[in-house]
Amino acid sequence: MDIGAVNALSYEDFVNIFGNVVEKCPIITAAVWSRRPFGNLNALETAINEFIDELPESGKEGILRCHPDLAGRDLQSGTLTRESREEQARAGMDALSPGEAARMARLNEEYKKRFGFPFVICARMSDKNTILQQLSERRLHELPVERARGIEEVKKICRVRLQSLVLSDAPNKL
Amino acid sequence: MDIGAVNALSYEDFVNIFGNVVEKCPIITAAVWSRRPFGNLNALETAINEFIDELPESGKEGILRCHPDLAGRDLQSGTLTRESREEQARAGMDALSPGEAARMARLNEEYKKRFGFPFVICARMSDKNTILQQLSERRLHELPVERARGIEEVKKICRVRLQSLVLSDAPNKL
Repeated sequence: MDIGAVNALSYEDFVNIFGNVVEKCPIITAAVWSRRPFGNLNALETAINEFIDELPESGKEGILRCHPDLAGRDLQSGTLTRESREEQARAGMDALSPGEAARMARLNEEYKKRFGFPFVICARMSDKNTILQQLSERRLHELPVERARGIEEVKKICRVRLQSLVLSDAPNKL
Repeated sequence: MDIGAVNALSYEDFVNIFGNVVEKCPIITAAVWSRRPFGNLNALETAINEFIDELPESGKEGILRCHPDLAGRDLQSGTLTRESREEQARAGMDALSPGEAARMARLNEEYKKRFGFPFVICARMSDKNTILQQLSERRLHELPVERARGIEEVKKICRVRLQSLVLSDAPNKL
């Protein structure tokens, strides 16, 4: 799909295709449709990032709270979004040893209790050892630092999802 | 559920219960969890309305674009959210005559083409004749007027959904 085709999409098709680039936040995709036409994929990504940056801190926490736990209940019960399921599987979250699973669950709970939102990391850019290490380190951060860090990860996830939805190898293609 | 019980909910339970009071926008519910404790149901509703009001105009359009058409594809294909399905059914949207259905479809398309978002009305406070009349009138508005009008309706829908989720008949209850 080239950028011209993206710019020609109705808001309904645009939200159907790109609505989950930020997990369970189709409002963000739906909002940036107002900023068409986009010159390229980067412009679309920038529009999304700017929308996120302009939200109040509570809104950023709201985005984080729309994310599932890694190796958590949604993975076990099959209620992850398609995108999250694929990302968690690639990072080995569906194949933890009992010991790893117990450690992940304990650290996730500790993290959520401290911050009031879940640990978010771009699983596609990571593996299970790095994820466990990051979770263990980041749970000790101060709230504002960790909120900002979580949002950085949301933006990385968004970039990966956007790229998987469109071709980006040709200069005039998304 | 009294307000104390609501204030004691984890963000996960809070979002599970209240996540669709604004259609397909769990981020809004998830964001206002940061503003606990709430003194009563009105305080929760006010927090949601204030979050909406602080969004840029594109964000308000984004909220509207997360809503389904009345008597549209989602109703016909069974993909409405539970809340929307019940509201549309009560307003008779699932029992239009062929002539009414054709008129609704034509006016919905005209409205969406003009504004870039769907016609939103609190169906619970209306019936099919009023809805058709309102759609016919509102499609002639200017964009800023109609965007604000749509958001007023979003807030009415939110109030009805909040009230259906909690008891509000006792002063110290939600």
